[in-house]
Amino acid sequence: MIQLPTIDPIADAALADRLQHRIDRLTKPVGSLGRIEALALQIGLIQRSERPRLACAQMLVFAADHGLAAQGVSAYPSDVTWQMVENFLAGGAAISVLAEQHSLALHIVDAGVRHRFEPRPRLIVHKIGEGTADSSLGPAMTAEQCARAIDAGREIVAALPGNVVLLGEMGIGNTSAAALLLARLTGRDVAECAGRGTGLDDAGLRRKLDVLRRVLARHESANGALDALAAFGGFEIAMMVGAALQAAALRRLVVVDGFITGAAILIAAALVPAVLGYCVFAHRSNEAGHALLLEHLRAEPLIDLGLRLGEGSGAALAWPLIDSAWRLLDRMASFDSAGVSQRSDG
Amino acid sequence: MIQLPTIDPIADAALADRLQHRIDRLTKPVGSLGRIEALALQIGLIQRSERPRLACAQMLVFAADHGLAAQGVSAYPSDVTWQMVENFLAGGAAISVLAEQHSLALHIVDAGVRHRFEPRPRLIVHKIGEGTADSSLGPAMTAEQCARAIDAGREIVAALPGNVVLLGEMGIGNTSAAALLLARLTGRDVAECAGRGTGLDDAGLRRKLDVLRRVLARHESANGALDALAAFGGFEIAMMVGAALQAAALRRLVVVDGFITGAAILIAAALVPAVLGYCVFAHRSNEAGHALLLEHLRAEPLIDLGLRLGEGSGAALAWPLIDSAWRLLDRMASFDSAGVSQRSDG
Repeated sequence: MIQLPTIDPIADAALADRLQHRIDRLTKPVGSLGRIEALALQIGLIQRSERPRLACAQMLVFAADHGLAAQGVSAYPSDVTWQMVENFLAGGAAISVLAEQHSLALHIVDAGVRHRFEPRPRLIVHKIGEGTADSSLGPAMTAEQCARAIDAGREIVAALPGNVVLLGEMGIGNTSAAALLLARLTGRDVAECAGRGTGLDDAGLRRKLDVLRRVLARHESANGALDALAAFGGFEIAMMVGAALQAAALRRLVVVDGFITGAAILIAAALVPAVLGYCVFAHRSNEAGHALLLEHLRAEPLIDLGLRLGEGSGAALAWPLIDSAWRLLDRMASFDSAGVSQRSDG
Repeated sequence: MIQLPTIDPIADAALADRLQHRIDRLTKPVGSLGRIEALALQIGLIQRSERPRLACAQMLVFAADHGLAAQGVSAYPSDVTWQMVENFLAGGAAISVLAEQHSLALHIVDAGVRHRFEPRPRLIVHKIGEGTADSSLGPAMTAEQCARAIDAGREIVAALPGNVVLLGEMGIGNTSAAALLLARLTGRDVAECAGRGTGLDDAGLRRKLDVLRRVLARHESANGALDALAAFGGFEIAMMVGAALQAAALRRLVVVDGFITGAAILIAAALVPAVLGYCVFAHRSNEAGHALLLEHLRAEPLIDLGLRLGEGSGAALAWPLIDSAWRLLDRMASFDSAGVSQRSDG
C-alpha cells in the first residue's frame, strides 16, 4: 500500500578518496578538525561533489496529539501541544529563537493536533486526524492513516527548496510512542526505553511504564516497522518517517533532533536502511532511551548538553557545526595555495 | 613587579535566584535546555543582569615562536607560525572561515613571531621578542618580558569593544610549553600532560617527552605560576593570561579554546582564582593532557569533537551555543505571556 522512495547508498570509494585528499591538503594538521572533517566528507558524499554546499536549510517541526496521553503518561496536559504550536508561530518558543538566530526557514506542520488553527504563514496544516487513538485501547492509527502520514511527510519535503532538512516535533505523550517503537524494534525492555519525558516524577514514571507495558502486550503482533508505527503512533512520527525518506531520496542532508525524531529515523531505516547515510544526529538527549536508540543505529551525535526539549531545538543548536563543515572544506586554503610548509618529518 | 587586576567573583545568590526563576518560567519543561540554561545563568551573573546580552564578540589569536622548537618537539618547522599568521590574515585558515561564518571580529596578535609582518588590518603587532629562548638551555623569557606580555594582553583587551573575548593561539612548539606548565602546576607526570601536538608519531612523542623532562629538571625551582610561565613560555600564553584577567576585570565573558589556551587560564586562575567564573571552556580536545587540565580546573567543556587544531577554532565552533544561551533567555516567551498550560501535576 505504501510507496517507498528509492534511496542511493552514499558510499562511493573513489569520491571518498578524493574528498579525503582535499580535506588532508587544507592548512591544518591531518585530522585536526576531528568530527567536523567526517561531516565534510559525509556532506560531499551526499551531494556527490568535492565542493558540496549546504543551502536554504529547512527546519520542520511536526506536531500532533496522542490518544495515549489520556492515560496520564505526561506531566503536561494535551492542550500544551496546540498552545506550543501557537508559541512556535508567535516566535516565543526555543525553536523560534534558534531558527531566527541561524536563519533557518521554520515551518510548523499540523500533522494531527486536536485544535483548529487559523491559517498563518509558516503553518502547514496536513491533519491526518484529531490526534491519534489511544493505543492502550486499540491501534493509534489505521494502516491507511499511517500511509497517508508518511506520504504527507514526503510531499512536504518535496515542496521545499534547499538541500538540508532539520527535523523536530511537538506532541504531548510522544516520548511514550517513541519508547514503544524503540522497545518493539530493538526487543529491549520498555523500562530501558522510556524516560521522564517533559519531567515526570518517580511515581509518574512508574505509571507511564505500567501503561506502556499494557500497550505493548495489547499489540503483541505489531512487529514490523509499519505495523508498530500504526499501533503506537503518532502522526508526527509517521510524517517524519516520510520526510526523512524523501529528503534522502532527493540527496538532501537530514539533521535529526532527539529521542522522538530518532524514533522516526529508526522506522525509516527499518524501511530503507540507506536513509542513515543522509542523517546527522544532532545530540544525545537526557531522555532515557535516547542513548540506547543512538547505539542501536550506531549513531554518534554531535553534542551532549543534557537537552530534552524537542521542537528540533537540539538540531538547531547543532546546526552551526554542520554548516561549518562544508564552509571549511570550501573556503580553507591548501598548504600549496597558502605557501605553508609541510611537516618536517613528512 | 606585575600589576594584577581586581576581579569580582561572579557569585550573587539573590541574582542567581532571580535568573533561575526567569529561566524556569520560559516555555519549556524546567531544566530541559540543559547546559544552555547554565550558560544563560553564568552570562547573567557575569553581566549582573537578568537580561544579559552578548555583543561584539572579539576573537583574538595570539601567535609567537618557541625557542624549544629547536629541540624537535613539533612535527612542523617553526616557519609555520608566521606562515599561518599570513594565512589567518589572508582568510584561508580554519579560524578565518569560522570567524566569518559567525561574524566574530578577528584580530591576530604578533606576540613574538620570528618574522617581520607588513602592517595589515586585523594584525596587532606587540612583539615581546623574536620568539622565546630555548627553555632547555635557560628560561624561555625574563621576568620582565613575562610581565610585559601579560600587560600587553591586558591592554589589547581593554582597547576592544564588546563584552565577549574568544581566545586562541598559534605557535609551533606551544603544546610543549602548555604541557610543561600543566605538569609543574599540577605536579602530574609530564607523560600524562604532553601529547602528539600537531601530529608527532610514537618516536617523535618519545623524543618530546625526553626533552620536556630535561626542561622540567632544569627549572626545578620555577614553582610559582609566574616563575613557571617565564621558565617555559611562551609569549602568546603570557599574553592570553593578561587578556583573560583583563576581560574578567571588565566583566566580559572569556571563551577558552583548547589545550594551550587552557594552560593560560591555568596560570591566570593561579594568579586570580575569580577569573574562572568568567570562563566558558569551549571543547575537550584530542590533545593528551587537555582532559587532565580541564579536570584540574573542574571545567566541563561544551563540545567534544576530537578537535586539536588550536587557532581558537574550537572556541569559534562552540560560540553559537553560547550565543544561543542569552538569546533564549532574552527572547523566549514565559508560560504566562504565551498562555501555555502548566504541568498537570505541578
